[in-house]
Amino acid sequence: MAVTMLDVANKAGVSKSTVSRVLNGKNIVRPELVSRVFEAIKDTGYRPNILAQSLSSRQTNFIGFVIANVLFDGPYFSSLMYHAASFCEDSGHQLVMTDGKRSKVEERHAINFLLDMCCTGIIIYPKYLNDKELASIISNADIPIMVINHDIEELPQYAITTDHYQSAVKMMEYIVGQGHKHIAIIRGNVCSGTDKQRYQAYRDVLAKYHLPYQCEREQQGNWTLEGGYLAAQRLLETSVQVTAVLACNDDMAIGASKAFKKAGLSLPEEMSVVGFDNSNVGEYLSPSLTSVNIPLKALTQKAILNILGEHEKAVAIDTSASIIFRESVHQMMTE
Amino acid sequence: MAVTMLDVANKAGVSKSTVSRVLNGKNIVRPELVSRVFEAIKDTGYRPNILAQSLSSRQTNFIGFVIANVLFDGPYFSSLMYHAASFCEDSGHQLVMTDGKRSKVEERHAINFLLDMCCTGIIIYPKYLNDKELASIISNADIPIMVINHDIEELPQYAITTDHYQSAVKMMEYIVGQGHKHIAIIRGNVCSGTDKQRYQAYRDVLAKYHLPYQCEREQQGNWTLEGGYLAAQRLLETSVQVTAVLACNDDMAIGASKAFKKAGLSLPEEMSVVGFDNSNVGEYLSPSLTSVNIPLKALTQKAILNILGEHEKAVAIDTSASIIFRESVHQMMTE
Repeated sequence: MAVTMLDVANKAGVSKSTVSRVLNGKNIVRPELVSRVFEAIKDTGYRPNILAQSLSSRQTNFIGFVIANVLFDGPYFSSLMYHAASFCEDSGHQLVMTDGKRSKVEERHAINFLLDMCCTGIIIYPKYLNDKELASIISNADIPIMVINHDIEELPQYAITTDHYQSAVKMMEYIVGQGHKHIAIIRGNVCSGTDKQRYQAYRDVLAKYHLPYQCEREQQGNWTLEGGYLAAQRLLETSVQVTAVLACNDDMAIGASKAFKKAGLSLPEEMSVVGFDNSNVGEYLSPSLTSVNIPLKALTQKAILNILGEHEKAVAIDTSASIIFRESVHQMMTE
Repeated sequence: MAVTMLDVANKAGVSKSTVSRVLNGKNIVRPELVSRVFEAIKDTGYRPNILAQSLSSRQTNFIGFVIANVLFDGPYFSSLMYHAASFCEDSGHQLVMTDGKRSKVEERHAINFLLDMCCTGIIIYPKYLNDKELASIISNADIPIMVINHDIEELPQYAITTDHYQSAVKMMEYIVGQGHKHIAIIRGNVCSGTDKQRYQAYRDVLAKYHLPYQCEREQQGNWTLEGGYLAAQRLLETSVQVTAVLACNDDMAIGASKAFKKAGLSLPEEMSVVGFDNSNVGEYLSPSLTSVNIPLKALTQKAILNILGEHEKAVAIDTSASIIFRESVHQMMTE
C-alpha cells in the first residue's frame, strides 16, 4: 500500500497538518519537529503527490498532445510522437498524450483533460473538431494551444501547417516533366482536408498541361496499405492507360506497387508510383519510393517553440514540404 | 481567459464557497441561490476542473502507459499504442501516455506522474528499470501495474510476456526444415532481453542440427532499417557462405533485403530473409516477408483486463507468438 501523509504523521508523532506545513516549507514548525518529520518521511518512503501540488500552484511541466486513435496505426504517427517527445524532453517537459477517440465530444474531452492538468501548452492534431470549434477552444484557454496540420482561419497564428496543395503540385509537375501523360490518382479518405488539397493539385496540373482527366484514373484508397492495393487492382481492371500513379500517401503507394508487381508489371519501367510522407521504409523498397517529405519534425518543433513562448525561433522554422527523389518514377522516352 | 469559480460567484452574486457547495451537491444552500449559481455557470461557460475533483476523490477513468521515446519510431510502437487506446476506449477509459525518456530516474518519474493522477491502472513497457525495481514499484502501488514484454521473477502475475525464445526456435526450425545449412543472424541492440532470447534460439537450433556456428554470420543491427542494411552489407563483405538470414525484427529484415537486392541477389532464390513483428508492410513487400507475429493486441488486452480486475478473462488470452508464412524463404533442393 502507498504511504500517506497520515502514516508520516503517525511515525513522527505529529499531526498531519504539521507534516503538511513542513513539506510546504512553512517556518512556523519547531526545528526539532521538522527533523522528526523528515526522519519519518525517510523511514516510511513517503512521496508527496506532485501532480496535486502542481495543480494547486497551477504550474506543471507537461505538454499535452491530443490525437485520435484511428490515426495511431502507421509510421506517420510514430514519427510524429517521436519528434514531439524529443522536443518536450529537450526543453525539460514531459509529453502527455491523450486519445481523441471517435467523436467531437471525445476529442473535446481529451483536450479538457489536458487543460485540467494545467499543461504548459497543448498540441492538437485534430480529426473531428472543425475550424470554428478549435478557434473557440483556443481563445477560451489560459494556455497556448497549437493545432497541427489544420488551418484555423480566425486564428492563423495557432495553426502550424505545411502546404499540401503546393507540394502535390510540385510532385505532379515532376511526374509530367518525366514525360508521363496518363497519370492516375489513389486518394485518401473522403473527408480528409489533406486529401482534398492533393486531389485539387492533381486536377489543376492535369488541366495546366492539357492532359485529359478521366474518372477511371481516380480511385479511392483509405490511407492504408490494403486500400492502396485494392485501388490499384481496380485501376488495372479498367482498360484505361496509366503510366504513373500519384498515391496520396506512402502506405497506399506501397500497397499499389505490390498489386502492380503481382500483375506482372516491372516497376518503374511499366508503372511509376509516388507517395507522400517520406516514410522511413520508402528508401528500402525496390525500387525505392519517390515521396513528398512532410516535415513532421519541423511542425512539432514549431508548435512546441510557440508553446514555450519562443516565437522568434518558431517563425524561423521552415515547414514547407520537399520532394525526396528516388527510383520509382521512370523517365519516358520523348515521342 | 478561462472562466473561474470566482467569475461564477461574482455573476451569481454569491460567495465562491457557495458555488463550491452547489457544485458538490450539498443541500445546505437555499434553492433560490442554487438556481442563480446554475444560471451563472451557463452564462459564463464555467467548466469545473474534473481532474482536480477526480484527484480529491482518488477515482479516475485513466489508464496510464509508460514507454520511452527511443521506442517510438516504428510500426511496432504505433500498433502497440493503437491496441492500448482501443481497449481503453472499449472499456470506457482514457489512455494517457507518458514518456520514460532516457534513464531509470526518468522512467520512474513517468510512472510516478501516472500514480499521482490516480489512474485506474498503469501499463509499463520498460526500457531502463530492472526486474527488482519494477517489482518494488508494483508492490508499493495502490493500483494494478502491469508490465509488458519483461519478466518479473518475484511477481510473475504482473508480467505479460510472449515467449520470444520459443517463437525464434520455431522460426529457426522452419528455416532448417527448408534445407538451409548456412544461416546468419542480424541482431538487435546489445542490451535487449528480446534480442538475447532470439540469439539463444539461433545458437541452440544450430547446435541441435549440428550446423556449425561461425562468428562472421553474426552481425549487429540496432532494430532499424539502416542497421539491417549495414549489417547485411558487412555480411556480404565477409566471404562466408549464407543462404538465409534470421533478422531479429522486420525493420532489419527489410533493410537487409534492400542490401542483398542492391548486391544483385535474387530474393528469395539466392537469399532467404525472415523477421519478427509481422509489421503491416511485410505483406506488401516483394517477396512478402515471412515473420513471427508478436501478439501486441493480445498482450495489451491481457494487461488491461488485469487492470480492470477481469482476471478470468485475462487468463484465457493466448499471448503465444506464431509464424506468418509468406514468400521470403526459399525451399532448398535436397543435396
